[in-house]
Amino acid sequence: MARRKRELSNNLINRLPQYLTYLKELDKDSYVSALEVANSLNLNFELVKKDFQKISSKRGVPNKGRKVDDLINGIEKLLGFDENHRAILVGVGHLGNALLNYQGFKQYNLEIVGAFDYNKEIIGKTINGIKVYDFDDISSIRRKLNATIGIICVPASEAEGVAIRLVASGIEAIWNFAPVRLDVNDDVIVSNMDMAQSLANLAHRLYIKK
Amino acid sequence: MARRKRELSNNLINRLPQYLTYLKELDKDSYVSALEVANSLNLNFELVKKDFQKISSKRGVPNKGRKVDDLINGIEKLLGFDENHRAILVGVGHLGNALLNYQGFKQYNLEIVGAFDYNKEIIGKTINGIKVYDFDDISSIRRKLNATIGIICVPASEAEGVAIRLVASGIEAIWNFAPVRLDVNDDVIVSNMDMAQSLANLAHRLYIKK
Repeated sequence: MARRKRELSNNLINRLPQYLTYLKELDKDSYVSALEVANSLNLNFELVKKDFQKISSKRGVPNKGRKVDDLINGIEKLLGFDENHRAILVGVGHLGNALLNYQGFKQYNLEIVGAFDYNKEIIGKTINGIKVYDFDDISSIRRKLNATIGIICVPASEAEGVAIRLVASGIEAIWNFAPVRLDVNDDVIVSNMDMAQSLANLAHRLYIKK
Repeated sequence: MARRKRELSNNLINRLPQYLTYLKELDKDSYVSALEVANSLNLNFELVKKDFQKISSKRGVPNKGRKVDDLINGIEKLLGFDENHRAILVGVGHLGNALLNYQGFKQYNLEIVGAFDYNKEIIGKTINGIKVYDFDDISSIRRKLNATIGIICVPASEAEGVAIRLVASGIEAIWNFAPVRLDVNDDVIVSNMDMAQSLANLAHRLYIKK
């Protein structure tokens, strides 16, 4: 299917999921204005108006706004969420467990199709319909499951080793929840979710304020 | 206790928890060089050397480096992690549950001292030693628990309402896991952990690459 791919600014990439979450709570066939969305999400009205022009080529209806469905489809196309992303998760501790049970990924067309651990007590179990495999079998099972994204939920000290094995198994993108920067091949896409950094930032600002 | 409080750059705040995680895995009485740390964390050596000078005023020992213990204490002082931070968590779903069970907060001196929900089936339960209270009792229990940080793990649509009630109850800083920007008073500190944004970024880069 031919369609033009545009690289979006990071700020826009950050706003699009916010719009999506908000819009998905509305009736698909209803209409919404940029002003309503701007007010609800505490964003600048002019900014939202411009974003909406990028999201959908269909014009809005005066005094009604744009159709919710058109906006949702536009955002999903821009982000690539209309394609199904198959992910595997490594490290079934508390955080890994929470992610396996998280219902919010579906709206981004991310499906976790398998989990991996070294712990013999967990291997073979099924969590929220997702089977846990032995990490030693990563290469063959990654291929069988046809997953492109690897989610790392292991401790910091193990994360780099896991990342290297994921890449060797054919994973193209890593979503890293371990509090460490990963040194992987440049053409592997890495996105970090660093709780320690976020908490450090909070604690430091609280400390400075006192 | 008189001590000079310095506002740190965001980049330094981002690196300090990485150092801390790494250093805490070493023997406290051992020595470590900036080069070792730079190599292990995939950071620039000169940068780590400069950071270490900010972290500890004690000079390193030639061919050995700096004492691990001195570096840990220095980082904790800079970030304010040597002070105990008492937090409450709102929204005991899968993510809330994972955070209540997360063992990694202790190293940052963050203690979750209570949890809140509206669900009558969860209220009264104890998770990892942390009691779950009725969110309607937030004001009195926040005071009793003497908590300053509020962790929001509710769905996006409920997050702002929860934030407003947390601030009204006396919370000074909010760690927000809901995928929405919060509109709270300017002197409330907010740090966002946005999984949807992080995932959107990853999915979009994967989509552009193909």
